[in-house]
Amino acid sequence: MPDYPKVKYKEEGMREGMQIEDAQISIEDKVELLDMLSETGLQQIVVGSFVSPKWTPQMERIDEIVTKFKPKPGVTYTALALNSRGVERAKAYSPPLTIERDAFPRLNVHMCDVFVRRNTNRTQMQEMERWPQVIAQAQELNIKEAGVGTNASWGSNFMGEFPVDNLMTMLERQHSMWDEVGIAVRSASMGDPMSHCTPAKVEESVYRVKERWPEINHIRLHLHNGRNMAIASAYAAMRVLGPDDTLELDGTIGGFGGCPYCGNGRSTGMAPTEDLLHMMEDMGIPTGVDIDKLIDCVWTAERIMGRELYGHVSKAGPRPKSVESLYDINMPFVETTESAKHFKKGPGTYEGGIYPYSEPITSPYRDRVNAGGNAYDDANGDFPWKQDWFPAKG
Amino acid sequence: MPDYPKVKYKEEGMREGMQIEDAQISIEDKVELLDMLSETGLQQIVVGSFVSPKWTPQMERIDEIVTKFKPKPGVTYTALALNSRGVERAKAYSPPLTIERDAFPRLNVHMCDVFVRRNTNRTQMQEMERWPQVIAQAQELNIKEAGVGTNASWGSNFMGEFPVDNLMTMLERQHSMWDEVGIAVRSASMGDPMSHCTPAKVEESVYRVKERWPEINHIRLHLHNGRNMAIASAYAAMRVLGPDDTLELDGTIGGFGGCPYCGNGRSTGMAPTEDLLHMMEDMGIPTGVDIDKLIDCVWTAERIMGRELYGHVSKAGPRPKSVESLYDINMPFVETTESAKHFKKGPGTYEGGIYPYSEPITSPYRDRVNAGGNAYDDANGDFPWKQDWFPAKG
Repeated sequence: MPDYPKVKYKEEGMREGMQIEDAQISIEDKVELLDMLSETGLQQIVVGSFVSPKWTPQMERIDEIVTKFKPKPGVTYTALALNSRGVERAKAYSPPLTIERDAFPRLNVHMCDVFVRRNTNRTQMQEMERWPQVIAQAQELNIKEAGVGTNASWGSNFMGEFPVDNLMTMLERQHSMWDEVGIAVRSASMGDPMSHCTPAKVEESVYRVKERWPEINHIRLHLHNGRNMAIASAYAAMRVLGPDDTLELDGTIGGFGGCPYCGNGRSTGMAPTEDLLHMMEDMGIPTGVDIDKLIDCVWTAERIMGRELYGHVSKAGPRPKSVESLYDINMPFVETTESAKHFKKGPGTYEGGIYPYSEPITSPYRDRVNAGGNAYDDANGDFPWKQDWFPAKG
Repeated sequence: MPDYPKVKYKEEGMREGMQIEDAQISIEDKVELLDMLSETGLQQIVVGSFVSPKWTPQMERIDEIVTKFKPKPGVTYTALALNSRGVERAKAYSPPLTIERDAFPRLNVHMCDVFVRRNTNRTQMQEMERWPQVIAQAQELNIKEAGVGTNASWGSNFMGEFPVDNLMTMLERQHSMWDEVGIAVRSASMGDPMSHCTPAKVEESVYRVKERWPEINHIRLHLHNGRNMAIASAYAAMRVLGPDDTLELDGTIGGFGGCPYCGNGRSTGMAPTEDLLHMMEDMGIPTGVDIDKLIDCVWTAERIMGRELYGHVSKAGPRPKSVESLYDINMPFVETTESAKHFKKGPGTYEGGIYPYSEPITSPYRDRVNAGGNAYDDANGDFPWKQDWFPAKG
């Protein structure tokens, strides 16, 4: 079994999700959802953003949300702010908010000059012009470790694909500027606002960063899911990082989300938190999150939004592993998505379904599992051909 | 760049998809969808199944479908049959149907004794009892190459998780039986009717099969997507196979599908064909499929089913790469899923959207792309810091 990295996960539903939904969703609904998220075990939750209500009316009443929600001790709550005015507004609510600061002073740049103009009213050149200033400030503060980063890392809806070579050249340039002042680079961030990630490109990028600069042990990925590649890309990154690395990932419950500037609207989405964390648990990467409570959050979000969201584990349920969670071997047909919700709602959801068996299903394997054993005791254990009665012997 | 395997893809929407949908969907709608699928470039299409109309009324009128659809030369059409009666029914329509035969005589077994009883009214032991018969028949026919295989390979909703060790023990036993009669094993099949695949387990399984038996160069994966792991798992398999290997994959347009026996109903699903093939194209694995036509099929399927299906590329559109497909850099806000469909429906979908810019967006990078160049000419090319005017020099 591979040694996977540590993963730090940030729930973005209240920000990336809500910013593209109906601005009329009530504060009560939003606070209810945020309070439910707080109880899941998630450690980092973005509550919304302090941005212009003119262009993002969905966040107009963010002040009320941060006033009314119940902060859970141990959870870090942050809010996005895109300029100093936003930061000032957020500071009025700290605590409970933690004013979001990158763990490392970072040189960052959008690979796509069009997207950065559309989204933040700046040019790529203006982003780069800030680099010397970021470095000077880090020197002043006597900071020893810094970061590099790109956004729209693999491609853009307005410019097409960016080869990984281009991304590496950008990071190389940033790295050399930190080198010149003797500040070590420990973190590389790669954003993907327009869903151009693929597992192959993410794997190649993370691999090349680690190969070029083994001392970079923090990788941050902000992946959008408009082309259904976010989970596979996150897996690809976990695959090439090791236990001394920290992988920072973002996603949203249900996978909802989007931005009005990228051209994909609500079809942008992110990795569904419940699906991604469910995968991580299976891989032995601890999340500390109760998937069942996360599914409650998704169902609540679906009620609020009035439609099904993208995630799957909230519909089919987690892979049952404990005896208590195994399905009834004599359950009737389960056909609709509503009856499939028996994993939380109980057998009433499929009551009256077609039962096609003339005699009840039984199985000696399930008996063994029910008694606390494994279906197959171990790899060389109680397989049928170990038994005298097995007919297919040599 | 890794050398990926050849991929053979089978579209299962008309079978895995339709078998869990409303039995009242009209034959005209089904034939229309099947005929559209034929025009996409897909090479293997399952048209439905010849099974008992009592338990699968959705397939009751399969005879009409195979009579009315327009077979496309070069496309292989198959139908599922679970017993000899089903095979006889299918044979009446061959051609156009190809009677589905595994390319290799195969020893196969469900890891889950409960699921095989529920789904096919057989026990695991009865499956194994057939092994000597399969081998004897292969010997009679003087067949030189054979296959091994498991179903419910990684776990079951009725029995929990099966460690990869168990799967390997099953394959080992099958392999040794072929060894004893001197028939070479070239293919390993792993099915997953209950969505227990994860990329880590699929990767481990495929890796261990190849490590143990390097001469196995056909891997077949039938992965369900109830926990959103099918695409990541397919990627993981591509990752560990090489150009001398063939990977056989199944999926459904839109990702719909399910079976009434597994307990997840319509929430089961498979990898959305359009998303998976779009990924493969980006990886340089040829599919021969026109993604745009595939999206037409998804939209038609959504009209027929009266709801959105699971796939993403049909909603956000493919990653634009050609100049013609790049988005208008002055497009207004795109917020809804309907306006996001501009990638096929044109700018009318977002007409009247908020335009937040005081002056039109321009970008020298996009000008370069429009003129037929790359945004960044090459890895060491026309990056800003190569220019005299770049302000952030050392």
